[in-house]
Amino acid sequence: MDKTIGSAVIGYGGMGSWHVRKQLELKDHFTFQGSFDIDPARQMAAETAGQRAYPSLGALLADPAVEFVVVATPNDTHLSLVLAALEAGKHVMCEKPVALSPAEFEEMVSAAERCHRVFTVHQNRRGDDDYLTIRRIIESNTLGPVFQIESRVQGSRGIPGDWRNQKVHGGGMVLDWGVHLFDQMLQMTQPRRLTRVYTQLTAVTGTDCDDGFRTMLTFDDGLTAYVEVTTSNFISLPRWYVLGEDGSAVIHDWSCKGEIVKVSDWEKRDAVPIRAGVGITKTMAPRTDETIKRYDIEKVPGDWNMNYLGVYEAIRNGKPTVVTYDEQRRLLALLQAVFQSGETGEVVHFDDKWMP
Amino acid sequence: MDKTIGSAVIGYGGMGSWHVRKQLELKDHFTFQGSFDIDPARQMAAETAGQRAYPSLGALLADPAVEFVVVATPNDTHLSLVLAALEAGKHVMCEKPVALSPAEFEEMVSAAERCHRVFTVHQNRRGDDDYLTIRRIIESNTLGPVFQIESRVQGSRGIPGDWRNQKVHGGGMVLDWGVHLFDQMLQMTQPRRLTRVYTQLTAVTGTDCDDGFRTMLTFDDGLTAYVEVTTSNFISLPRWYVLGEDGSAVIHDWSCKGEIVKVSDWEKRDAVPIRAGVGITKTMAPRTDETIKRYDIEKVPGDWNMNYLGVYEAIRNGKPTVVTYDEQRRLLALLQAVFQSGETGEVVHFDDKWMP
Repeated sequence: MDKTIGSAVIGYGGMGSWHVRKQLELKDHFTFQGSFDIDPARQMAAETAGQRAYPSLGALLADPAVEFVVVATPNDTHLSLVLAALEAGKHVMCEKPVALSPAEFEEMVSAAERCHRVFTVHQNRRGDDDYLTIRRIIESNTLGPVFQIESRVQGSRGIPGDWRNQKVHGGGMVLDWGVHLFDQMLQMTQPRRLTRVYTQLTAVTGTDCDDGFRTMLTFDDGLTAYVEVTTSNFISLPRWYVLGEDGSAVIHDWSCKGEIVKVSDWEKRDAVPIRAGVGITKTMAPRTDETIKRYDIEKVPGDWNMNYLGVYEAIRNGKPTVVTYDEQRRLLALLQAVFQSGETGEVVHFDDKWMP
Repeated sequence: MDKTIGSAVIGYGGMGSWHVRKQLELKDHFTFQGSFDIDPARQMAAETAGQRAYPSLGALLADPAVEFVVVATPNDTHLSLVLAALEAGKHVMCEKPVALSPAEFEEMVSAAERCHRVFTVHQNRRGDDDYLTIRRIIESNTLGPVFQIESRVQGSRGIPGDWRNQKVHGGGMVLDWGVHLFDQMLQMTQPRRLTRVYTQLTAVTGTDCDDGFRTMLTFDDGLTAYVEVTTSNFISLPRWYVLGEDGSAVIHDWSCKGEIVKVSDWEKRDAVPIRAGVGITKTMAPRTDETIKRYDIEKVPGDWNMNYLGVYEAIRNGKPTVVTYDEQRRLLALLQAVFQSGETGEVVHFDDKWMP
């Protein structure tokens, strides 16, 4: 083991304090030095928790014991803070969304290259157990060729009342949970080329930014996908719903409860018509147990440390980071397409130049 | 009670034989005379069931005891058969989709007006219990202002192997279950103006027509809706899923099992963060029973005779039919938009000139 990396966190809100706990936990890899927040109450909270609160951003960035900085502040402040940290000679991991536009991100990348520093983004939900579980189901070919992937996160509390409901600070659900779900979708659909994006933005709770979205994606091989984040749903549809030619899979919730149903006899078509409403249907008659088999979901454990151990390896051993520049370029381009489609009501033809 | 109406059925397949049974059942209103099918096996089936099979279409249409004819044949034959029946002086009810294009339908309407005959379409699923139940939930304002309506019918048997998987005969799921679901959606969203249509057509089972579709609709007041018919789903999402500002409703299946969940305290936001994957979330934390109330679904009984009793009243007492010309014009225009969007991959801006 090489020596630990001296680390610090800018911003001590919900995620900032999470990062502090994570760095303290990974003490074989990181030596947490302290945090800074512009809010005195949050400075006090850090000190009450027994940690150092730097008196200023400058003091944090001037501390030679700090080699690595995590930026966990409102989205509209990422650019200036990432640049400042890189210019101060720190390696940087920024919370998602890393930038509010592709141009902002390119500024960050240029600075990282100029300063020869490691720069990456905290896409922690690539390690979620539900995501790793559905990926393994798809990649193991359990369902046969997959033709539809649906990914939903539905809450019932509107969006948080802080900066996250203000457009000027990069608020809204596209830039909150959306960033995670789109990143997961782009990862799990590789190496396909994304061709079309259609989005309905929602505005149920009347904030000045979106409080949710519904997006249909089309890929070049015919795969289609659906991504939804909504926040006024008192009943939830499943977290994951995936259709393959040989079967379907559902994961209902964070606990990964769900099932796989596979066809064992596609050709057995002697369906008994069923009553459906005031009509009859053979087409929509459910299958009998004779022609299908049901399987439990085998949960893949979540990976809570993927990003941190990756950035450690990048800083100490020159390995590539878990989250690459091109992945972020593609993701930011998709977020732009989502907003453009939602705001114009038109389909956006996606120029997938960052395709893996 | 006026005297019964002498009736006959053209086509003795799945729906044709259903119509014969319905006319026999409604014997206080109809006196069933016989059927005709071009398939000798189906002629035999009618006779085996103890009914008259006319030796030819001409014989059926020439029978003065027949005042009213139901057309229940493949979709591409509706035009010529409806015209022939009207010209022969019969009142006509045609199976859905009544026509393969708006122009075909206008020919039928012109013939009906020229011949002074009643002409209507068998949109029987306006009487489905699940549909009537969700409509009552919405119209009773139980959920508050509704902003999203999702209507899905998902099967796992592909599409039937007869004419219904052949484009030339008007096959495919848009023109099968789609006609019902879009008709229901246009009915239940009145009096809003439909503005945008986006569709992904599916082609999982490799027939020459669609084997399903997913459509997003947008209305002028911001209501959005989703309509899906798919046929390769071994696990089904709910039949109805509706979101209102005060609550959500789900109807899972034809039995109308489901629930309504209403918020009792919107402002109570002291959510306890929950673990979600490898992160935490307050936004997506489920509500506690303190701030929501759950209600069972009260099923509205299906109306199996709506179309038949309506056409009886129209023929005998000059009342308007249940299904009007303008409703069919609007529905056929929507079906065209669905195909156009699905085939081009673009949003269709809907010219809602038949708005109620």
